[in-house]
Amino acid sequence: MQAEIITIGDEILIGQIVDTNSAFIGKILNSVGVSVYQITSIQDDRAHILKALSAAEANADIIIVTGGLGPTKDDITKHTICDYFNDHLVRNEAVTINIERLWRDYVKQPMQQVNLDQALMPSQSQVLMNTVGSAPGMWIEKNNKVFISLPGVPYEMKLLMENEVIPKLKNKYKRPSILHKTLITYGIGESMLAEKIEEWETNLPIFIKLAYLPNFGKVRLRLSAIGADLESITRAVDAEIQKVIPLIKTEYIGIEEEDGDLEVVIAKQLTKLGKTLALAESCTGGKIAELFTSHSGASAYFKGGVVTYATQSKIDILGVPEILITTHSVVSAEVAEVMAQKARVLYKSDFALSTTGNAGPAKGDSEAEVGTVFIALATENGVFSQKFELGSNRERVVNKSVNKALELLQKEIFKI
Amino acid sequence: MQAEIITIGDEILIGQIVDTNSAFIGKILNSVGVSVYQITSIQDDRAHILKALSAAEANADIIIVTGGLGPTKDDITKHTICDYFNDHLVRNEAVTINIERLWRDYVKQPMQQVNLDQALMPSQSQVLMNTVGSAPGMWIEKNNKVFISLPGVPYEMKLLMENEVIPKLKNKYKRPSILHKTLITYGIGESMLAEKIEEWETNLPIFIKLAYLPNFGKVRLRLSAIGADLESITRAVDAEIQKVIPLIKTEYIGIEEEDGDLEVVIAKQLTKLGKTLALAESCTGGKIAELFTSHSGASAYFKGGVVTYATQSKIDILGVPEILITTHSVVSAEVAEVMAQKARVLYKSDFALSTTGNAGPAKGDSEAEVGTVFIALATENGVFSQKFELGSNRERVVNKSVNKALELLQKEIFKI
Repeated sequence: MQAEIITIGDEILIGQIVDTNSAFIGKILNSVGVSVYQITSIQDDRAHILKALSAAEANADIIIVTGGLGPTKDDITKHTICDYFNDHLVRNEAVTINIERLWRDYVKQPMQQVNLDQALMPSQSQVLMNTVGSAPGMWIEKNNKVFISLPGVPYEMKLLMENEVIPKLKNKYKRPSILHKTLITYGIGESMLAEKIEEWETNLPIFIKLAYLPNFGKVRLRLSAIGADLESITRAVDAEIQKVIPLIKTEYIGIEEEDGDLEVVIAKQLTKLGKTLALAESCTGGKIAELFTSHSGASAYFKGGVVTYATQSKIDILGVPEILITTHSVVSAEVAEVMAQKARVLYKSDFALSTTGNAGPAKGDSEAEVGTVFIALATENGVFSQKFELGSNRERVVNKSVNKALELLQKEIFKI
Repeated sequence: MQAEIITIGDEILIGQIVDTNSAFIGKILNSVGVSVYQITSIQDDRAHILKALSAAEANADIIIVTGGLGPTKDDITKHTICDYFNDHLVRNEAVTINIERLWRDYVKQPMQQVNLDQALMPSQSQVLMNTVGSAPGMWIEKNNKVFISLPGVPYEMKLLMENEVIPKLKNKYKRPSILHKTLITYGIGESMLAEKIEEWETNLPIFIKLAYLPNFGKVRLRLSAIGADLESITRAVDAEIQKVIPLIKTEYIGIEEEDGDLEVVIAKQLTKLGKTLALAESCTGGKIAELFTSHSGASAYFKGGVVTYATQSKIDILGVPEILITTHSVVSAEVAEVMAQKARVLYKSDFALSTTGNAGPAKGDSEAEVGTVFIALATENGVFSQKFELGSNRERVVNKSVNKALELLQKEIFKI
């Protein structure tokens, strides 16, 4: 069972937006046994859309198209799909009622004819009702292939995938099972990791595929398997995981799909322990806070954090003694440690993480080299810090700092 | 001059990562007059790579491939490119020296044979030297087309695009100019906006293309033009912008490419005014702080922020009176306003923004409905707040809150 995803929009090709839709669709399709053969991003152009539909039809059983369904003139997907199927548009009553409801309850602005015209649907299509937006999804079957057209607005697309597309696909097709389990490791490069597990990798069963995913100081190892019976492939993958973990036990953190990414592993462990966390972020600028709060349930363990970006705010908000900053510089182990301790007291938390460093591009309030970062962790037993040299690329310094901070915390809370 | 981008990696197709590389490449190519016809994401599979290369060669003059150049067994791009060109690998001395330097200075772990083998290059290729990673880029010319292969690690790819690929492309091709100018508007839906500017849109010159980009309460209007002479297309686009701004003057914020996105517009204005900002974030969880600090130069105006996620931390850190919370609920105009005022005092800033709301999925510390958010802004003249009902989708509530907060601040600081 193979799918192709086509995302339509000049804004993708000129790099004005990042296409996040296809990652979401790929993941949810995999979860129900549908593989994605290819993702194609194309222009809002009639000829290009027709060409892409026909190319995808040759490869895949399921073709999912996003984008180009808005009410404005630059949105041409619906008319082009009509052309592809030699179809014509007819007004759909249920969609009309839905649009009128949305305008009455939410938009509260005068409705335009173009909004009502979003209820015009290809006559061969089944409506995928969009309860949160005016562009409905479409489901068209042809020669035992399914064409699905969805709006490009991510949260509308997601709701339609979850509530309409996936149930209908499950119903229509008998699908195999696809299993991905990804081991998260920290603190070792991919080639070193590969050497450690070389023999194990060589002896992997043929139906289990291994991939290395390096990213800012962590390397993820993904085992993928596909098979008719979920139980038997799970058993086989789990057996391999049990063999490999002892080979990488100092680097291994958890399994992404079961345990979540590192912040989720930490969140679960803190919640389980009944312990709480606070943050004092300087060079990471709120990114660690945002990471924890991007998952629901954070209020169980996350007390909050301060972003003390300016040196003066470290003094004013956290009460870092000015003399410490003058003596040791604002980017120093001493300042990082006091930041963590003060945040812990301020938030009455069990743990507090702090970051202070120079992310570049220019030297800031301190004389520290660009890329120098100190990360500290305060616990009920005291405080400790580590120094990192993370290079001169701003994005890399910030992201590596976030990963290193999480790693430090993870190692500490799993000792308990 | 047309390019195609091929991103290789199963992790993209299964939705384990979002492909951000192609957006970066699309943007930088446009900036030097190269259009992107299509972006194709494919599997780490020999047959699929060969097929994609051949399809891209038929459409484009420049084919840029990312990914699959790592040292581990799942990385097959280099060998497959060799097959595509009937080529063979030869060791490159300069790359070998670069890899040895990286290991000595940064990796500081034993080098493996697989690392040294990253210096094996197709004999027809020119090396694009990667000074920050062990996988070099490749540049291969064939029938007046250029094939470029780059590592998938985003910051390595970016450096190679900027320092190697773009200069070589500029040198090799005479290119037209591509101009995008995107007007940012807030507070109006796309169909209402379209109605307001309908006559203007209808009368746009044929070589200027208009697109509507709606996103969480803001709508961007992009004007795109392509032509031999940058000056004349700029003049034409600017003339149209001068015509449209009066039609949308209450919604218009600025031009994205010149002024940057809203947080950049705000950053510039605050810096210009010599004014500073602080934040007290609850439901946005640090996302506003992260947005401001993701751009360099934030220390000029950004004092910092507190993330007071737990109710108790609003009392402990910000000093919100407990009685106010008990009386009005933690999600209320009163609490939002005091949060902003307290943050302003704490950080000694000119402005302070606060958010408090329930992002869902479950009701949290307050009885407020999911989606109810209060945003307040404290200034030297006092404080005011606004209430928003942002629906039940967590991601949407958080993102809309961020946009609404920025909008509030923007309107205030541009009054000055």
